[in-house]
Amino acid sequence: MGKIICAGLGPGDPDLMSLRSYRAIQGARHIAYFRKAGYEGQARRLVDGMLPEGAAEYPMEYPVTTEIHFTDPEYNRILGAFYDEWADTLAEMAKTDDVVVLCEGDPFLYGSFMHLHIRLEGRAEVEIIPGITGMSGCWTATGQPITWGDDVLTVAMATLSEDDLATRAANTDALVIMKIGRNLPKLRRALERAGRLEDAWLVERGTMVDQTVQKLTEVTGKVPYFSIVILHGQGRRP
Amino acid sequence: MGKIICAGLGPGDPDLMSLRSYRAIQGARHIAYFRKAGYEGQARRLVDGMLPEGAAEYPMEYPVTTEIHFTDPEYNRILGAFYDEWADTLAEMAKTDDVVVLCEGDPFLYGSFMHLHIRLEGRAEVEIIPGITGMSGCWTATGQPITWGDDVLTVAMATLSEDDLATRAANTDALVIMKIGRNLPKLRRALERAGRLEDAWLVERGTMVDQTVQKLTEVTGKVPYFSIVILHGQGRRP
Repeated sequence: MGKIICAGLGPGDPDLMSLRSYRAIQGARHIAYFRKAGYEGQARRLVDGMLPEGAAEYPMEYPVTTEIHFTDPEYNRILGAFYDEWADTLAEMAKTDDVVVLCEGDPFLYGSFMHLHIRLEGRAEVEIIPGITGMSGCWTATGQPITWGDDVLTVAMATLSEDDLATRAANTDALVIMKIGRNLPKLRRALERAGRLEDAWLVERGTMVDQTVQKLTEVTGKVPYFSIVILHGQGRRP
Repeated sequence: MGKIICAGLGPGDPDLMSLRSYRAIQGARHIAYFRKAGYEGQARRLVDGMLPEGAAEYPMEYPVTTEIHFTDPEYNRILGAFYDEWADTLAEMAKTDDVVVLCEGDPFLYGSFMHLHIRLEGRAEVEIIPGITGMSGCWTATGQPITWGDDVLTVAMATLSEDDLATRAANTDALVIMKIGRNLPKLRRALERAGRLEDAWLVERGTMVDQTVQKLTEVTGKVPYFSIVILHGQGRRP
């Protein structure tokens, strides 16, 4: 009997993965990872040079990413079938050997693995190795603490409505916004309405060699979906 | 010229520290860490067996923890002087050699090092190595993802007022509450008012060998200040 080990990889710099994830990857005979079809994939790239010789690789290629909107029932049907199929495959593999599934960031914080996790319940032993979150990589990149004292931290997605984003921004000390991409104009308007646009930072590829940190007011043009906006708390400090 | 390296240690299991923190600690000639006077200290205990022979240790003992309330000006004066003094000491040391400062969890998320960090600005080179947060260790311990899809995650301290806690609990999908201890009865009332007490989990010593995970409704007696309450988001999933 094997088990399925979901190895959190952390924010992007390979040196920021945990000792436990590193050892799991170095000892893996079967390695699975999500990626967009036609791409190497960020998770796979992160472990370049770490896999033991002869390890079998299982790229799990999303059948759809942004081609269909996530509110379309067809999006759920296609992705649901994809997760069903991979859960079956991994459960079958785990009957005889361990399988390591790579997961960027921290698996249980908005990670894709959780969609396999609920499908594997009761069918295979699953071990989750947490990771440093992408947002932590980004606030560390800004060179300023995200929260002090009793600051409230809100983490929200830029996919929310402008009204909701404005309310969230007004009612928190520290704020992290993920899934930016084409939601940037809406997010700017929301932060402006909350009087907090001037305090916002945009971080791209936090902790990676080509990371960038900019004041959001100085950002021009498009930004990646996976960039992160950071507003620091200013709470109590002796 | 040396630098000050703040090494995030992660949530408690030594195997969950990053490769970079591990290497920094293994190569350290000078190691500083916070602790309560008279105790070994959790940060120091976490690196047991990792320090190189002959490494010099600098325990930074808090002159006050809970003996004076943090709203008392005396609390700020005493702690401020303590941080001033250690910032001076570390800056002086960094003129000739690297100094590694241990920090549980993730240094820029409610970490004590940030009080040294602002005092060291412009006086010494400082490198922050992020870590897996304590809260991530706790939500991983519950065996359930903390956030799905577009869930909003709120992180708040149980030191807030009952009204504030109740409002926060009612207006978020996922919730993490830290600094529990004697605030537990107030927090229970707030979660009850928000209709969310039944969904709350209490995690003590997440990822450590003696971790416990309980439904909050089943917790009896006192709980530690550093235990964490978790309410999972239930958002969109294909």
